[in-house]
Amino acid sequence: MGRKIQSPRAPQALPPSGQSSDGLPAKIDRRGFLARGAGIAGAAAAGIAPQAAAQDATAVPPWMQTMGTPMRGYGNPSKFEEKVLRVAASGYAKVTPGAGASRTPLQALEGTITPSGLHFERHHNGVPTIDPAQHRLMIHGLVKKPLVFTVESLERYPMTSRICFVECAGNSGPNTVNPKPPQATAQAIHGLVSCSEWTGVPLALLLNEAGVEAGADWLLAEGADAAAMGRSVPLAKGLDDAMLALYQNGERLRPEQGYPVRLLLPGWEGNMNVKWLRRIKVTRGPTHTKDETSKYSDMVPGGKALQFTFAMGVKSVITRPSFGGKLAGPGFHEVSGIAWSGAGRIRRVDVTLDGGATWKEAVLQGPILSRSLTRFRLPWDWNGGQAVIASRAVDEKGSVQPTRAAWLAEMAQPARYHNHSIQAWEVAADGSIANVFI
Amino acid sequence: MGRKIQSPRAPQALPPSGQSSDGLPAKIDRRGFLARGAGIAGAAAAGIAPQAAAQDATAVPPWMQTMGTPMRGYGNPSKFEEKVLRVAASGYAKVTPGAGASRTPLQALEGTITPSGLHFERHHNGVPTIDPAQHRLMIHGLVKKPLVFTVESLERYPMTSRICFVECAGNSGPNTVNPKPPQATAQAIHGLVSCSEWTGVPLALLLNEAGVEAGADWLLAEGADAAAMGRSVPLAKGLDDAMLALYQNGERLRPEQGYPVRLLLPGWEGNMNVKWLRRIKVTRGPTHTKDETSKYSDMVPGGKALQFTFAMGVKSVITRPSFGGKLAGPGFHEVSGIAWSGAGRIRRVDVTLDGGATWKEAVLQGPILSRSLTRFRLPWDWNGGQAVIASRAVDEKGSVQPTRAAWLAEMAQPARYHNHSIQAWEVAADGSIANVFI
Repeated sequence: MGRKIQSPRAPQALPPSGQSSDGLPAKIDRRGFLARGAGIAGAAAAGIAPQAAAQDATAVPPWMQTMGTPMRGYGNPSKFEEKVLRVAASGYAKVTPGAGASRTPLQALEGTITPSGLHFERHHNGVPTIDPAQHRLMIHGLVKKPLVFTVESLERYPMTSRICFVECAGNSGPNTVNPKPPQATAQAIHGLVSCSEWTGVPLALLLNEAGVEAGADWLLAEGADAAAMGRSVPLAKGLDDAMLALYQNGERLRPEQGYPVRLLLPGWEGNMNVKWLRRIKVTRGPTHTKDETSKYSDMVPGGKALQFTFAMGVKSVITRPSFGGKLAGPGFHEVSGIAWSGAGRIRRVDVTLDGGATWKEAVLQGPILSRSLTRFRLPWDWNGGQAVIASRAVDEKGSVQPTRAAWLAEMAQPARYHNHSIQAWEVAADGSIANVFI
Repeated sequence: MGRKIQSPRAPQALPPSGQSSDGLPAKIDRRGFLARGAGIAGAAAAGIAPQAAAQDATAVPPWMQTMGTPMRGYGNPSKFEEKVLRVAASGYAKVTPGAGASRTPLQALEGTITPSGLHFERHHNGVPTIDPAQHRLMIHGLVKKPLVFTVESLERYPMTSRICFVECAGNSGPNTVNPKPPQATAQAIHGLVSCSEWTGVPLALLLNEAGVEAGADWLLAEGADAAAMGRSVPLAKGLDDAMLALYQNGERLRPEQGYPVRLLLPGWEGNMNVKWLRRIKVTRGPTHTKDETSKYSDMVPGGKALQFTFAMGVKSVITRPSFGGKLAGPGFHEVSGIAWSGAGRIRRVDVTLDGGATWKEAVLQGPILSRSLTRFRLPWDWNGGQAVIASRAVDEKGSVQPTRAAWLAEMAQPARYHNHSIQAWEVAADGSIANVFI
């Protein structure tokens, strides 16, 4: 922590503020980068973007010649990022504003945390405006002592934090209900997944306090939206890692995510993570609510159906390059994407650069957390020719992300929910990118 | 992933939307919670907050009787959280709007991630509004090939992500420049620390590409704000874990955090993490800029000074309970706080509930990441009497957070910067909380 001055050096002459004193010709090295790069092997050296003229860097830009803007109580993104937004699926909005979904712009994001302002939305009757001082959460049903909590009383309980994803059952549906690949962004196809640090009270604490009666084996969770959205949850999950989340990425939940309190079921189907939670009823058997019988059920061949789907399947998506972007030219490009599994940690992600003929293991960015997004990266020396890229994730249970064809074969058509099959992007010789099925 | 229907249960009769069918008397169990709690030992059972009447929970609240608000492109916090804001230090704002600091409301937050809208600010001449298409970053000085990068070209390089804190050198200064403990919130005293997931390009990649000349051992980093804020950084850090950060918590940097690119030096003094980065000059010896000679230097006894302070000291703060809050009554309360060290991971945090006479080891919330905030928690059965609570962190190097007296003894007075000494809060019998020096 610091060192004492022994023989201080004389200060060097500094150039005038904002200017470089040397004015050397500046030049981006188009060749040497990869050879000297930090441990990036296997990709040949090639062009990194256009180089800038020296005067661009030594000139004093206008923003250095004027006082900047003052501090703000709550900050927002730069105006130059105003196009990075959630986008609502078309159709719904006009008829029933509030019902429907809006999607996270995955292709514009990096890392693993989703900024709360861009967390995907799925509402069945809009976002209720709930006064936390008036909100109540009841635990009742097959319990020894029914309990009612204010938000203030929930804050008194021991809390826990975890980083985990939430994914809507309908995510990636556009890739399965359409016989031809929709030409759309990662956001439009896969943007119903987001990842936050959640903090709240373990549900097990409160269930134990209420005292679950013998024979009870399910819960009913119901929201305080005007749809009274409700889902059945196995009691075992409630006693495992379920959380009554009060905080999202450090601050109180956003309204769209269930303010003031939501049920968080790490790794499980998004819809079960009931928002604006108002009651949990302990039951024997599932309740078969409208929200679990009219939607979110998968039909399978032979006239049967999967009654419930809990953990979301192992999955990955390349977010860069992806549809809507364009490769500036041949040479080095980083392939970057996200992987996740409702069953636990991601073990590995393989990436193909040749349409599935060969696969290379991507680098996983730590920390690799259970039921969280994991960022993967692979260096790619693009030769400028047509190429099909795709990723395939494997989780700690050994489950492997299936091909689209293999996944569809297990489902009755049209398969709408829980698509976790491989996403492929085709890069054309001009650098443009299309969605393709492989 | 799902189970097939074998013998579906008949749906149960559901109560009308938003109403409970049983109307049982609801009651919060004031006694049983801790005895049955999930592994929380050592604290006696006692009152968890006021109980609500049964009708409060079974009534249909107004927000269930109307359509909610529609989806939004970019979300914001609930209007009920409008007081959770950064607060600018008084004084500065009137004379030089933009110069100064605003602080993170630590006492209102949980977990470890700071929402980007609440990340503390420290500006020397306001926030520049930088067009990323026009911004340039130059690497020059003692290099074989000076390089100029556009933001677009930086995006072409391999990236990495890490969750880490940034802390201003002046953080916690109010506790050392004042002879008596200021009666102020954790925000006002310690709110110049925040934590984000940062993603960007390892600086080492670009330095290697430029080719550092023999004999060079320092860097000069300069910002594109109107103050041309500049700091010297040892080359070794630049070749270690330094990053040119482009993303913060998943999205592009916020303007206040250096949009479009900042230098990130994990664990090191906040001011060295130069925002709006426009050039890095490779030098022999430090540059002695105005920003490292007029400020941020610590005077020590004997007329000497610490020329530089790099890694921030091991530190912790209890955020709940803390000044501004009030304990509702005797019984169970969770002590929750944050710990961090510029030298690496937090190894342990001890908490005293009796003014330092005895210490108990707190639970650390995983993942415990190097140079990141780590949340710690300890259950506390408050007997309703006067109590002084404080936390003491130890990092993986074995460094122990010092007492205020021990820390001050190493500094010449008034000691203004790098205060990482123990923070104590006194809880009075009425539940109110004061800042005290122990």
